[in-house]
Amino acid sequence: MDLLKDKILKDGIALNSEVLKVDSFINHQVDVNLMKEIGIEFANYFRNKNITKVFTIETSGIAPAVFTSLELNVPLVILKKQNSKILNDNFYTTEVKSFTKNTTYNLTLSKNYIDTNDNILIIDDFLANGEAAKGAIKLIENANAKVAGIGIVIEKAFQPGRNFLEASGYDIYSLARIKSLDNTKINFID
Amino acid sequence: MDLLKDKILKDGIALNSEVLKVDSFINHQVDVNLMKEIGIEFANYFRNKNITKVFTIETSGIAPAVFTSLELNVPLVILKKQNSKILNDNFYTTEVKSFTKNTTYNLTLSKNYIDTNDNILIIDDFLANGEAAKGAIKLIENANAKVAGIGIVIEKAFQPGRNFLEASGYDIYSLARIKSLDNTKINFID
Repeated sequence: MDLLKDKILKDGIALNSEVLKVDSFINHQVDVNLMKEIGIEFANYFRNKNITKVFTIETSGIAPAVFTSLELNVPLVILKKQNSKILNDNFYTTEVKSFTKNTTYNLTLSKNYIDTNDNILIIDDFLANGEAAKGAIKLIENANAKVAGIGIVIEKAFQPGRNFLEASGYDIYSLARIKSLDNTKINFID
Repeated sequence: MDLLKDKILKDGIALNSEVLKVDSFINHQVDVNLMKEIGIEFANYFRNKNITKVFTIETSGIAPAVFTSLELNVPLVILKKQNSKILNDNFYTTEVKSFTKNTTYNLTLSKNYIDTNDNILIIDDFLANGEAAKGAIKLIENANAKVAGIGIVIEKAFQPGRNFLEASGYDIYSLARIKSLDNTKINFID
C-alpha cells in the first residue's frame, strides 16, 4: 500500500536493525485518515471471505480494525491483555510472550462474543515473531470458530512470524513488508 | 443521544448499583456503527471550539475517539497506561488511581505530540470519579496546552466526576447520563 509505505519512509524511525518506531502516526499519535484508508484496503482484500467478525488485540490494532469492521459491517472484538490469569469459566484465555517487551501476558476473550459459526478476520498493527497472532488464533480455534485471514499493517519480514503462520495455512495480507532496517535505513520487499 | 440510550437499555447490564456492564457494544465487543454516530455527535458539539487534537486514554475510549478525530479532521493521541514510571525527559507522566479496579497506573504522553498552541478535546468511554480525565487534564496543562472540552460516552452521574470537573470550569458533554443503577434498573437523567 503506497500511501502507507510513503508515510513510513517519511515519519517512521528505524531505531536499530530490529525496531521501527511509528509513534507519530500509529502507536501513540494516530493518523486517522490513514487508518481509514488501511481499513478500506483490508476490507477490500477480505470482502469475499464471508467475515462475520473482526478481532484485534489491544491497543494499537484498534484504530485500523475499527475501520475494517465498519467497512465490512461486522462487529469488532478487542482481545484484552491481562497481567493475571482470569479464572472464570466464561472466558477463553491463552498466554502470549512479547519478545519486543520481554514480558508475558494473558490474552482473553469472553465466550459471549464468539461461536462455532464465526469466520474471523484478525487485524494487528505489527507482525514480527507472530506471538500475538498465534494467541488470537488459539482463542478462536479453542471456540471451534474459523480464522478467515490475518491483516497486518506492518510486517517485519526479517522475523519469523509470517513463515510460521503461512506454514499453518493462514492467509496473511500485510500492507507494508519491511525487508530490513539495517543502518537505520528502511527497506521494503518489492 | 437516543440511539445510545436505547442501546444501553437493550444491551447494558446493571451488575449492581455502581457497575454498568457494556461489554457487548463498547468495552470488549464494539458496535462500530454506533461508535461512528457517537464520534459525529461529539464532533458536532465541539466543532466550533477550534480543536487541534483529540486525546483519549487506552483502551475503550479509542473507538469513539477515532471517529471524533476523523470527523474533526485532527490527529488523535492515545494516552498510554504504564505499570511503572517512565523515567524519560521526553514524556509527561502522572499517576492515576482507578477506583473501579482498585489499581494505580502512570498515564504518559510524549512531548512530541503536544505543544503550547494545542486546544485539546478529551474523549473517554466512562466518567465516574473523574480520575482518568483529571490525569489527562494534568498532562495537557503540564505542557501549557489548553483543554477545549471533555466528551464522555456514559456518565455515572451519581459519582462525583462531573461536579469536580465542572467546578474547575471544563465543558463536559456526556451522551448518556446515568442517574442510578438501583435494583439492576438503569435510570437516565432527563
